[in-house]
Amino acid sequence: MVYHIIAGLCALLLSMLGGYTLLPVLKKLRVGQTINELGPQNHMAKQGALTMGGVSFLAAGLLCSLAFGFRYKNDHGQLLLYCVLCTLSFGLVGFVDDYLKVVRHRSEGLTVKQKLLPQIVLAIVFAVIAYASDSIGSGIMLPFTSKRLELGVFYIPVAAFVIVAVDNSANILDGLDGLLSSNSSIAFAAMSAYATYTGIVTQNGSLMNTGVFCLCMCAAVFGFLRYNTHPAKMFMGDVGSLGIGGALAAVSIVSGSMLMLPFMLVTMMISSLSDFAQVIYMRRHHGRKLMRMSPLHHHLELGGMPETHVVSLYSTITLIGCAAAFILFM
Amino acid sequence: MVYHIIAGLCALLLSMLGGYTLLPVLKKLRVGQTINELGPQNHMAKQGALTMGGVSFLAAGLLCSLAFGFRYKNDHGQLLLYCVLCTLSFGLVGFVDDYLKVVRHRSEGLTVKQKLLPQIVLAIVFAVIAYASDSIGSGIMLPFTSKRLELGVFYIPVAAFVIVAVDNSANILDGLDGLLSSNSSIAFAAMSAYATYTGIVTQNGSLMNTGVFCLCMCAAVFGFLRYNTHPAKMFMGDVGSLGIGGALAAVSIVSGSMLMLPFMLVTMMISSLSDFAQVIYMRRHHGRKLMRMSPLHHHLELGGMPETHVVSLYSTITLIGCAAAFILFM
Repeated sequence: MVYHIIAGLCALLLSMLGGYTLLPVLKKLRVGQTINELGPQNHMAKQGALTMGGVSFLAAGLLCSLAFGFRYKNDHGQLLLYCVLCTLSFGLVGFVDDYLKVVRHRSEGLTVKQKLLPQIVLAIVFAVIAYASDSIGSGIMLPFTSKRLELGVFYIPVAAFVIVAVDNSANILDGLDGLLSSNSSIAFAAMSAYATYTGIVTQNGSLMNTGVFCLCMCAAVFGFLRYNTHPAKMFMGDVGSLGIGGALAAVSIVSGSMLMLPFMLVTMMISSLSDFAQVIYMRRHHGRKLMRMSPLHHHLELGGMPETHVVSLYSTITLIGCAAAFILFM
Repeated sequence: MVYHIIAGLCALLLSMLGGYTLLPVLKKLRVGQTINELGPQNHMAKQGALTMGGVSFLAAGLLCSLAFGFRYKNDHGQLLLYCVLCTLSFGLVGFVDDYLKVVRHRSEGLTVKQKLLPQIVLAIVFAVIAYASDSIGSGIMLPFTSKRLELGVFYIPVAAFVIVAVDNSANILDGLDGLLSSNSSIAFAAMSAYATYTGIVTQNGSLMNTGVFCLCMCAAVFGFLRYNTHPAKMFMGDVGSLGIGGALAAVSIVSGSMLMLPFMLVTMMISSLSDFAQVIYMRRHHGRKLMRMSPLHHHLELGGMPETHVVSLYSTITLIGCAAAFILFM
């Protein structure tokens, strides 16, 4: 318990220190966010705010995970390394995208296809690794029971889909100051509690190490809120949002808790689905819009809800989702 | 574990529902906050925002505590009732103050003496009750050991001082939108973890019930953030801040964790001390000011830090303080 707390505290302090160091560097390199012209009008004021801040909390979270995550008896740290590698890989895809945006000074960066393709490839690779690994396997936990459902070879497409879906949903949720940071920090905290608790109950040291990983990520992302709270000094960029998505997906895979994701990441799911709903509605109704702007958080914002209130509302919903996940699965 | 979560979830939902119901009532009764003319200039914009919102989360937190807090084997719920009564009593002092403000439409309400006197009397009463009670006693936990230091009859002035100090500090910290709500919600969560953990380790059902109380208060105050996040629709008023102070002090007394308070409530302590420092400095330096305005959060705000950033900074410091308290005392 105290060990977990020390690990989290280190990640928090390191993340704040990292952000503090990164800010002037980004300023010097002029790594400004080029605000999407399709976003809400008042977001144009954010033009020039710094981006790629995700680098600082990913570094802090992953370093502390590696420093503290091998304490409990385990299968040579396989689960932890899986999580770290998955986070890094997807963070890297985001990094390339951000880098292109900064160099080209355009809001787009990679095209949708260029961004989705490496994600799908990576997702399949990580799904296969999970399937082939003895310590992860092809089972998912079912609600109301402590039984695992074995999916066999079908596990691969399911896991790959979950990775791509979570990663893109995290990317979509990252639209308001502090929105993704606060929501994912809560989700990481809940995942940490779940992994640690399950690890203790089942005497599985690997899961307890995964709990340390989640807590480090939770604290690192929370530390980033120092710079990301409205009005934000720094955005996390795709490197941050895709990294967070990769980490969340990886943790759900190694702990077999993929079915908990619709609850814990309920706000991410809402964002993605609202995006789809908008597109489908517009196609069916000759361009008429379902929402003022998708995803839903922009719709709420344009409806007059202050940005800070949307963030607070979403955080509360995430917290309720996490509570629901615990009630169903513990 | 699941039981705790259900209790917290109920308190969260009830608190949000309570706030939702209270808002139109307060609006109808015109229970507007009369902003202190001595506060920062831009706070005059808050004139007319609703106050006494604390009623909703106190009701939600206390009702859920009473509904869920008697589960574990215990000494006829003495500890829980102590916490509930202490919260209620101090909340009542705040209620009277708020009520007078609303009726008289002046920022002052009770004079300082009129407000402090009942608090001191109540504090002594609750300190004596704690001292006389078999299940609370006159000991406080020491750091780095799991030993209790018995204070004997000196426990009474110490506990009374702690109650008055915490209560007034909570009142002082309640100066920005969401500041006290977020900080105290974190402190309640930490206290819940401490009480529950200690309860499990020492097989003390009463402490586990206290853990439920803290979690209900944490969730209720978090739910209030829906209305209290910047820009706030509703302030908690003295009924809320004094109630929160009473609850925090009571929990530290029944769990013997008074020495943890300087860590868990570090931001409250900073606020109070900065107030004292300002007054003493002005006396010694012929009216020259130490800070732009005391307490410190107004100083930071007037220095150009956005209100939301002060809240985020303070929350982070509280979180670090709670981590430090765990490391020292667990």
